[in-house]
Amino acid sequence: MKCFFDEQDLHDILSGSVFLACGGGCSIVGGKKMMDAVLNITDKVEYVPFENVDKGKFMAVHAGMGSSGALKENPPLEFGTLRSFNLLEDTLKKKLFATGRKGEYSLSYVVPVESSALAYFMCMLTGVQKKIPVLDGDGGGRAFPKLSMCTFASVGVPVSPAVLVNELPMDDGGTELIMNQESSDVVDELCRAVLDTPVFNNAASLAGFAMSGETLHRENAVVRNTLTKARDIGRVIRKNPNEAVEAVISLLKAHKLFDGAVVDISEQSKGGFNIGTVVIENGKNKVHVLNQNENIIVWSSEKNYPVAMAPDLICYLGDDGKPVSNTAMEKGQYLTLIGVEAPKEMTTRYIINEFSGLYRSFEYFGPYVPLKDIRQI
Amino acid sequence: MKCFFDEQDLHDILSGSVFLACGGGCSIVGGKKMMDAVLNITDKVEYVPFENVDKGKFMAVHAGMGSSGALKENPPLEFGTLRSFNLLEDTLKKKLFATGRKGEYSLSYVVPVESSALAYFMCMLTGVQKKIPVLDGDGGGRAFPKLSMCTFASVGVPVSPAVLVNELPMDDGGTELIMNQESSDVVDELCRAVLDTPVFNNAASLAGFAMSGETLHRENAVVRNTLTKARDIGRVIRKNPNEAVEAVISLLKAHKLFDGAVVDISEQSKGGFNIGTVVIENGKNKVHVLNQNENIIVWSSEKNYPVAMAPDLICYLGDDGKPVSNTAMEKGQYLTLIGVEAPKEMTTRYIINEFSGLYRSFEYFGPYVPLKDIRQI
Repeated sequence: MKCFFDEQDLHDILSGSVFLACGGGCSIVGGKKMMDAVLNITDKVEYVPFENVDKGKFMAVHAGMGSSGALKENPPLEFGTLRSFNLLEDTLKKKLFATGRKGEYSLSYVVPVESSALAYFMCMLTGVQKKIPVLDGDGGGRAFPKLSMCTFASVGVPVSPAVLVNELPMDDGGTELIMNQESSDVVDELCRAVLDTPVFNNAASLAGFAMSGETLHRENAVVRNTLTKARDIGRVIRKNPNEAVEAVISLLKAHKLFDGAVVDISEQSKGGFNIGTVVIENGKNKVHVLNQNENIIVWSSEKNYPVAMAPDLICYLGDDGKPVSNTAMEKGQYLTLIGVEAPKEMTTRYIINEFSGLYRSFEYFGPYVPLKDIRQI
Repeated sequence: MKCFFDEQDLHDILSGSVFLACGGGCSIVGGKKMMDAVLNITDKVEYVPFENVDKGKFMAVHAGMGSSGALKENPPLEFGTLRSFNLLEDTLKKKLFATGRKGEYSLSYVVPVESSALAYFMCMLTGVQKKIPVLDGDGGGRAFPKLSMCTFASVGVPVSPAVLVNELPMDDGGTELIMNQESSDVVDELCRAVLDTPVFNNAASLAGFAMSGETLHRENAVVRNTLTKARDIGRVIRKNPNEAVEAVISLLKAHKLFDGAVVDISEQSKGGFNIGTVVIENGKNKVHVLNQNENIIVWSSEKNYPVAMAPDLICYLGDDGKPVSNTAMEKGQYLTLIGVEAPKEMTTRYIINEFSGLYRSFEYFGPYVPLKDIRQI
């Protein structure tokens, strides 16, 4: 039996995925543009639960690449998403042909790299145009700043061939890059380099991490049921407008970390990355939330250790119950900071190692301590 | 009848091509590494004169991409050159297959993008491994800092698909990029962006501008007989060790612009480019030679207008008669500055327009004035 998200589900997924994106993704503004583009094509979107994935079929992953700010203004839309996915399929098809193997190769599912409005609606845009389902699962159960941090990379799915395209027609600045490079870290670096050129203008569609259903079934290869989880989060927020915080915390078995007013938002460039800091104040207490697109570490003025750290999810809800992204935040705004324990697929040694590299950019030199352990100190 | 360059010819081509590269290319040091790699494979290199090119056959262009300094240390060698060329051939073959057209597609000639040791020996490395001849001709009759300045771009040969690869094996940092983008200017920009990443380290092999022999026969599509010219320049330098300047000037109907000692060498970064200045002094007179890898404009302390400007060739010979590149130059060195009139293919409106863009980076806002007109003022 086929499964579908309807229009209400899409609205709920938009809201829930902005929450799961931990301050990153493309904000609710960019996400809405993408959702509207989906709804312009269809009023229902097919998805496939993990357990219905055919082990003999193939799929590939979509990721939105660029700066949060640019992606909010000019997110990937139906043109770039489909083009990157089709070009990847085409490249793989030719590769198969070149090896002399007979038989057709086609991509049967489209998979979000992370939990974010950006990745989810990219996949929906490709899915509804190509008439293939979106996987109900993704490579993080949260958003993250580098391609190498996804579960697919962690279980050794080759990132390449990876295809990066912009949203312009080929005769007017359209650009397609096919990259062959084993390391997702280096592919990430190559993408960031070209994203800075005017023709990309800091926003692009990536397709890569092609794999079989068999591979998807490897242990820790994917975080399951994340789109339906985003829908459920959006739904409880919608149904509990005055008690959204409590409803979300109860649904996700999450932890309220802090609430207060935003008193400072700043950003500095460091080693090629934008490092942001959001300061939230409540009475005498303050928290500093450090982000690199996504929220990575939270310091409290009351503690000599971080009170939350990625890969655990560090998420904002506004006082209207709506999820908030770092690029859509304003001084004076009242926020609740919520911590959600990372899915087990995101706490493997590989993934923790990737995040530890990030901690260093924030001058935190200690180990990852899971949220549940910090809460027990 | 097949034509070949022998070992002595290669030595002469090295010397002559460094002269024609107008201070750029990869210097005689990088060029020698590449020549040695060629001689390690064979003792003769097949070339094809323009008039023997089969109009029904196909060819593609090689360009070395990166900074002069990095290319001098780590020029493209037999691995990267052949890989970029083969990947381009493969991409074109699959493209043809995808369009349903039958028949084989193969690249029968390899064409240097410019006159430089870098481009010439890249082509030889691919040619001798693939057993196809190098065209005796190139896209400039000189070297130049941007892909969009070659004759192939000027007559509308599509730059893409263009393939950029580094010199590393695929399982140890090897990287292949296939770019689809109509504008050679943008492809140049994309290349420069990724060249800055550690995996490229500012040196790479590019293959692109695939075309037929028919296209090569378009008016102004190529500067002919340039490898044999480089060989002849190298030969007269070798045979006239004490009168190299006079011999080269007589061979090329060139103009001696100045001679003197190098008193200053400086470089500044401006708008993503490295702008270099070499000051040569003789008594009370000085010239400032401004370069962007290649020499672009010469100012004399005696004149209120530039005394030479690209696309005319602005070349150095040392007092030992050897050609000198900007990256191999030393303070105190005695140099003769020689101007050579640009080939007619490099003075089309398109090409002059491209170079005029460069003049602006050097704060010269006037028009291109050909060397022969300047000399008559």
